[in-house]
Amino acid sequence: MRTPAQQAELALLLEVAGTPKPGNVDRHRDLEELRFEHFLAGAVGARTGLDLAADGEPVGTAFERAVKGMAAQGGDNTQFGALLLLTPLVRAARDDLTRATVSSVCENTTVADAAGFYRAFDHVDVFVDEPPADMEPLDVRRGSDAIPALEERELTLFDVMERSVPGDDVAREWLTDFERSFGAAERLADTDETEPLSKRTADVFLELLAERPDTLVANRRGEDVATSVSERAAQLLADDGLESDPDALEAFADDLVSRGINPGTTADVTAAGLFIALEREAISV
Amino acid sequence: MRTPAQQAELALLLEVAGTPKPGNVDRHRDLEELRFEHFLAGAVGARTGLDLAADGEPVGTAFERAVKGMAAQGGDNTQFGALLLLTPLVRAARDDLTRATVSSVCENTTVADAAGFYRAFDHVDVFVDEPPADMEPLDVRRGSDAIPALEERELTLFDVMERSVPGDDVAREWLTDFERSFGAAERLADTDETEPLSKRTADVFLELLAERPDTLVANRRGEDVATSVSERAAQLLADDGLESDPDALEAFADDLVSRGINPGTTADVTAAGLFIALEREAISV
Repeated sequence: MRTPAQQAELALLLEVAGTPKPGNVDRHRDLEELRFEHFLAGAVGARTGLDLAADGEPVGTAFERAVKGMAAQGGDNTQFGALLLLTPLVRAARDDLTRATVSSVCENTTVADAAGFYRAFDHVDVFVDEPPADMEPLDVRRGSDAIPALEERELTLFDVMERSVPGDDVAREWLTDFERSFGAAERLADTDETEPLSKRTADVFLELLAERPDTLVANRRGEDVATSVSERAAQLLADDGLESDPDALEAFADDLVSRGINPGTTADVTAAGLFIALEREAISV
Repeated sequence: MRTPAQQAELALLLEVAGTPKPGNVDRHRDLEELRFEHFLAGAVGARTGLDLAADGEPVGTAFERAVKGMAAQGGDNTQFGALLLLTPLVRAARDDLTRATVSSVCENTTVADAAGFYRAFDHVDVFVDEPPADMEPLDVRRGSDAIPALEERELTLFDVMERSVPGDDVAREWLTDFERSFGAAERLADTDETEPLSKRTADVFLELLAERPDTLVANRRGEDVATSVSERAAQLLADDGLESDPDALEAFADDLVSRGINPGTTADVTAAGLFIALEREAISV
């Protein structure tokens, strides 16, 4: 019997092992400077923070510690977004892991939790979009320097997430009681349990990618690119490409990697779905 | 900065990610009932026991706990031998990780440590050969039932390892101050650091396999099979197959998998080498 923190670490490992996961590092693909080994080390390093969340420490404290540990490898940011989903989920799993309990964890976050979130940016270089003018003092890229402005405005971590939607589908999970994360867990439960989890994970990743344009791709490369990637994923699913034409899917994966298009937000939601599915025993390893 | 227990967990993950690792589960290959995901879960589960070793708990206690956690996945035994090497190595890394310190840890094990080792067999089904007639009461497959006989003969864990050589190259490490494990770490340090670690690990695995017939293969399939596997590995190295003919190496890997030949002892020594190299900063992730 694994603890919730162990399940969360395993979810990070299963996520990166999922293949083919178009555009991302997976069991079969490395990027130029971001490799499979960095994700393995990121998952191992994150565990201390995940343990804190499981022990009932505040979400901001646990998240900052998880990010600090995750970042102690040479690939820089590997799992920041995934940890922003897993930390409240692990905290919620102390009781009973439901959409209601994780929603309550998120809504009860404090200004101190928001400060922890900002401090996490001191440990790692995360890609984020320009903030609107009135939010400039709260640009996350300021890291802990933004904490006085945060405290002055009395913003909780939930408030910060609220201001990040739309445009960030990790923050959107916080606002929707983790709608897509729980949906991903249900999809995982519906996959064929005789198949390796690396394939089942990849199937669910593709469904999520087809469902909504990836916000990391949209922020980095524009809405049009993000939309076209999702449409291509949807077309492959419609053609039943996973079963009848695996080569088409592999070609799509190779194409996105070569163009540097990484649907990272979709991977984050996939990791959250894996955790929920493990914790609810909807999948087993 | 990762703790020794984190480094050991990462070593287990890097070992299974190494590819192509002829005959074993690797980043690109699953076996019929033993898959990549089982090794990921095994590494995560082993951590609690590795933490105990790092905290200075007795080797037998830490090993039994590591095995119990490792075995909490559906693939049964994934990393028993690797943990029998990593546990004393992590314990030694509390001070300074050298062949002398790990030798001292092993030689100072007690009858209670041997009892922990036997209890570990209660948690998992490990392939072992028939013991000689006079050792029958100490057959490890008896698990904790063998402990009274062990106590009567006042055998320490080091004594048990001594009686397992020859025929078990994991035990041989205990008797040789971890000769091949430290050698593997040196080989890893000599690999090209611009290459992914999954390739560098596979290169070292192949060198170790060429160097000595794998004792798990010998015990399961006979000395002749083990010798022929090593000779084929040596031939590939002599032909510089890793660089000039990767297909020959992949074909060798596929062939061993299809014949159910798994050089597990060589993988155990590779994992130990990865830990030593990480801990001594001879490789970095």
